[in-house]
Amino acid sequence: MIDQLVANIKKTNAPIVVGLDPMLNYVPSQILDKAMKEQGETLEAAGTAIWEYNKGIVDAVYDLIPAVKPQIAMYEQFGLPGLEAFQKTVDYCKEKGLVVIGDIKRGDIGSTSTAYANGHLGGVQIGSKKCYGFNEDFVTVNPYLGTDGVKPFVDVCKEEKKGIFVLVKTSNPSSGEFQDREIDGRPLYEIVGEYVSRWGADCVGKCGYSYVGAVVGATYPEMGKVLRKIMPKSYILVPGYGAQGGTAADLKPYFNEDGLGAIVNSSRGIICAYKQEKYAQFGEENYAEASRQAVIDMREDINANI
Amino acid sequence: MIDQLVANIKKTNAPIVVGLDPMLNYVPSQILDKAMKEQGETLEAAGTAIWEYNKGIVDAVYDLIPAVKPQIAMYEQFGLPGLEAFQKTVDYCKEKGLVVIGDIKRGDIGSTSTAYANGHLGGVQIGSKKCYGFNEDFVTVNPYLGTDGVKPFVDVCKEEKKGIFVLVKTSNPSSGEFQDREIDGRPLYEIVGEYVSRWGADCVGKCGYSYVGAVVGATYPEMGKVLRKIMPKSYILVPGYGAQGGTAADLKPYFNEDGLGAIVNSSRGIICAYKQEKYAQFGEENYAEASRQAVIDMREDINANI
Repeated sequence: MIDQLVANIKKTNAPIVVGLDPMLNYVPSQILDKAMKEQGETLEAAGTAIWEYNKGIVDAVYDLIPAVKPQIAMYEQFGLPGLEAFQKTVDYCKEKGLVVIGDIKRGDIGSTSTAYANGHLGGVQIGSKKCYGFNEDFVTVNPYLGTDGVKPFVDVCKEEKKGIFVLVKTSNPSSGEFQDREIDGRPLYEIVGEYVSRWGADCVGKCGYSYVGAVVGATYPEMGKVLRKIMPKSYILVPGYGAQGGTAADLKPYFNEDGLGAIVNSSRGIICAYKQEKYAQFGEENYAEASRQAVIDMREDINANI
Repeated sequence: MIDQLVANIKKTNAPIVVGLDPMLNYVPSQILDKAMKEQGETLEAAGTAIWEYNKGIVDAVYDLIPAVKPQIAMYEQFGLPGLEAFQKTVDYCKEKGLVVIGDIKRGDIGSTSTAYANGHLGGVQIGSKKCYGFNEDFVTVNPYLGTDGVKPFVDVCKEEKKGIFVLVKTSNPSSGEFQDREIDGRPLYEIVGEYVSRWGADCVGKCGYSYVGAVVGATYPEMGKVLRKIMPKSYILVPGYGAQGGTAADLKPYFNEDGLGAIVNSSRGIICAYKQEKYAQFGEENYAEASRQAVIDMREDINANI
């Protein structure tokens, strides 16, 4: 799947992933009102609304981008109907040829991580059949539990030709509280980075990159530079561009000299573009066209800087 | 909810939580075969089977225990039908008067953690109504992202009178890879423990304990002793007893002198008791009665040692 991701990036010339992280207040009123009229003020209506909203965006941008990253929390907040919308979104994006990165940040003790890996990347055996749950292409993984929390994901990736991105240095303001603490003179995130490099050493695809990647926030470019060197073969998923404060000028250190090695996420900046002054002329009804223009602008911004 | 948990523990005289972590190969054949006969070899059949299996166990043990801890990964592995079984299990256990600890180990950047907290402990506003998703009483939280990943859970707990257990030192063999690394001469887990203590300082219930608790594995009693002192007001959720190797003799340091302050989880040891030689006389059909006997034995074992 890392080969598919790199092929998609080359084809679109866009090292971009669109974060499908729908909040109810992002959803244009024509969609939300219709859902609530049909299903009442219910979780089901919320699920319908975010799915319709996502579909509009995907239809408008799928030919421009290699991948999407639905953040499962934004679906899980609506309980089962929300997760139904997550499943529909994953399936639809795959149909459209997009690589789907489930931003799930799971991680647990061995047998439990196996269950998560099976539910999101692999399958489960039921009687004589192998059945698939959410079936994303990549997922994000939390490393706090160490190797035996991550290894089951790597094993399922090998079998199913999927991939993961392990949290190394996250984009949020307080990420440094634990991740930056010095151990033998080096911050924890560097040590996690070394583990990522090791976990992915025998997982390199034809494209030369490993399907064990890392998450490193755009908001910490100096750290990105160091981590790029520690994990030369890992793809870096970079959140924090745009709404969280990272700029395109910050992104150069995350890429290798081949122009590959990183994929930059934008969520609000794309899916909620119609609410920005810059794209206000599209209007709420044409929110998806606003998202399309925002993707084109983001691609230009990033390609001019890397 | 911490007051409810402590009241339930006192009432049952059992500082025990039963981990409802169903694997398909734990489910007795009479239940699994029936589900597959009716629904085929499908995720739906798996969901039905684990729900029926859980219900049998809950019916047999609910009067003996204060709380249950369903591990969401074991449901998520079966996709949406699995999560439907999770929801049913949560609802049913609450009806039975049990405190439900959702073992979800979520944690993300601020706005995303808010979504998880709303989905599992609080609610979401849809039109004029507040709607609830999974609605557990407590959840487990991963601290790797620092304060702004945890604080949204604490805020929702305050509003909804719920609680969390933050991962401090997990029970698995490789938990030390990052958690034990020394920072200024002290292991990371101690530093996380200090944060837990601080996060929960103004969250103390009438019972004298905070609703910001911690997860500390039974497999590391020496560390449990230190962490007990660092977090005197935090309830400690202790996994790792039984199948993972922790014994009742290891548990004393996790409790305070009032005999409270810790709650010990057992999953396989209870829900899959009928497969142990010790309980083989019950037979597969009476798996729930075997679980009841295993709870009684566990209660005795722990109370004799703390």
